[in-house]
Amino acid sequence: MLSKALLKLIKSLEIKKFRKEYELFVAEGGKTVCDLINLNIEVEHIIATKEWLNNHKEIKNLNISEVSEEELKRASFLRTPQGVLAVFKQPKYDIDTTIPERELCLALDNVQDPGNLGTIIRIADWFGIENIYCSQGCADIYNPKTIQATMGAIGRVKIHYINLFNFLNNLKEKVNIYGTFLNGENIYNKSLENRGIIVMGNEGNGISEECSKIINTRLFVPNYPAERNTSESLNVSVATAIICSEFRRRF
Amino acid sequence: MLSKALLKLIKSLEIKKFRKEYELFVAEGGKTVCDLINLNIEVEHIIATKEWLNNHKEIKNLNISEVSEEELKRASFLRTPQGVLAVFKQPKYDIDTTIPERELCLALDNVQDPGNLGTIIRIADWFGIENIYCSQGCADIYNPKTIQATMGAIGRVKIHYINLFNFLNNLKEKVNIYGTFLNGENIYNKSLENRGIIVMGNEGNGISEECSKIINTRLFVPNYPAERNTSESLNVSVATAIICSEFRRRF
Repeated sequence: MLSKALLKLIKSLEIKKFRKEYELFVAEGGKTVCDLINLNIEVEHIIATKEWLNNHKEIKNLNISEVSEEELKRASFLRTPQGVLAVFKQPKYDIDTTIPERELCLALDNVQDPGNLGTIIRIADWFGIENIYCSQGCADIYNPKTIQATMGAIGRVKIHYINLFNFLNNLKEKVNIYGTFLNGENIYNKSLENRGIIVMGNEGNGISEECSKIINTRLFVPNYPAERNTSESLNVSVATAIICSEFRRRF
Repeated sequence: MLSKALLKLIKSLEIKKFRKEYELFVAEGGKTVCDLINLNIEVEHIIATKEWLNNHKEIKNLNISEVSEEELKRASFLRTPQGVLAVFKQPKYDIDTTIPERELCLALDNVQDPGNLGTIIRIADWFGIENIYCSQGCADIYNPKTIQATMGAIGRVKIHYINLFNFLNNLKEKVNIYGTFLNGENIYNKSLENRGIIVMGNEGNGISEECSKIINTRLFVPNYPAERNTSESLNVSVATAIICSEFRRRF
């Protein structure tokens, strides 16, 4: 059974203010929920249908409510609930701003679409980028749409919200700060390092003027063939994927 | 003013059955609407706010209704309407199944998410892939979410709905048919041709068993580092982007 109090808590977690206050977030679907549990993200509550629980007997010693399809539907943020929904504690970790001196990292400058943010986290995970630095204007990683798009990768990638300008400014003498611009250099021919920061910009406006000035390696993913009339740009998560693939291909 | 008949027509176009019957589709937002007009996609109706029309005086000689923000909101499929919505005729073109013998093409095997389909069309446009062959199980390209995600690219890329198995089977002796599989060969080291077909599979299940058998070049986008525990897969539009980039990089 789904208690009124739990339903109310879950519903409140669709709103950033309450996620922040309670330091909790919601994940849905067997793959994501099980991945997060296996990655030791602390679980507060699980609500699941009988059928789902019967197929997942390994989930135990946890705070589980067996609910009807109807109850799950009432709690879920999805149009088609996927058998299970769980409330997790937001993991806490310290911000280490020296990581880009040793590893390749991503920085997101006002990436506002929760789906794009989630997709970028999944891409980062695939390409072994373990730290993402987000400007305060980015979407919230605990937005249910972001969590959904990460497909569990949120448990393996650390996301830090910071003042992006100050952060980049402090690093600019120490590492390469990469960014993509329509007048940047062809990424395929450019020498790339296995450390530093790749900055990705806002969906509509690209990288902010302020941060653009700090970027010391300006890249471009060429369209093909160069002279063909084409879309003006690539979606930010798509561009992130191509760039990460190009960095990792070299090593 | 927005007539009742036009509102009813627009609303009906959210449903595939009516899009098919009327051979029409809806696009929203200035960038997409203007791009499609400039690409000579035939316009049936434009509804736009006074403000938008004042800023787009180049749009003329067309069937325009000036509407209030309120009326636009009633017609729009978006949570935040973008000043303009237009009804276009679906372009018609013949299916030429010999194109993969001369050019690189994409084939989609039951890509069901309208947003993924639209993003893939935008990627294809960027990388000069002008023809996409879709299995009948794919999402409809005229779904408003697909149109939105293409950002106008729909006017430059031709999409053909076909029997994918028969189509690939007829081509398998003539061209390379590429597909990605978790046990495929590292794409970065593989020789790739500038023609043929890249098959992308369904979001949950990948490429169907039937089509898998016809694929003669099995590829894999390696995660990094190879031994790290990571997500099981990449999103289909993200994988498409990386693969297209890798093909075009070589030429």
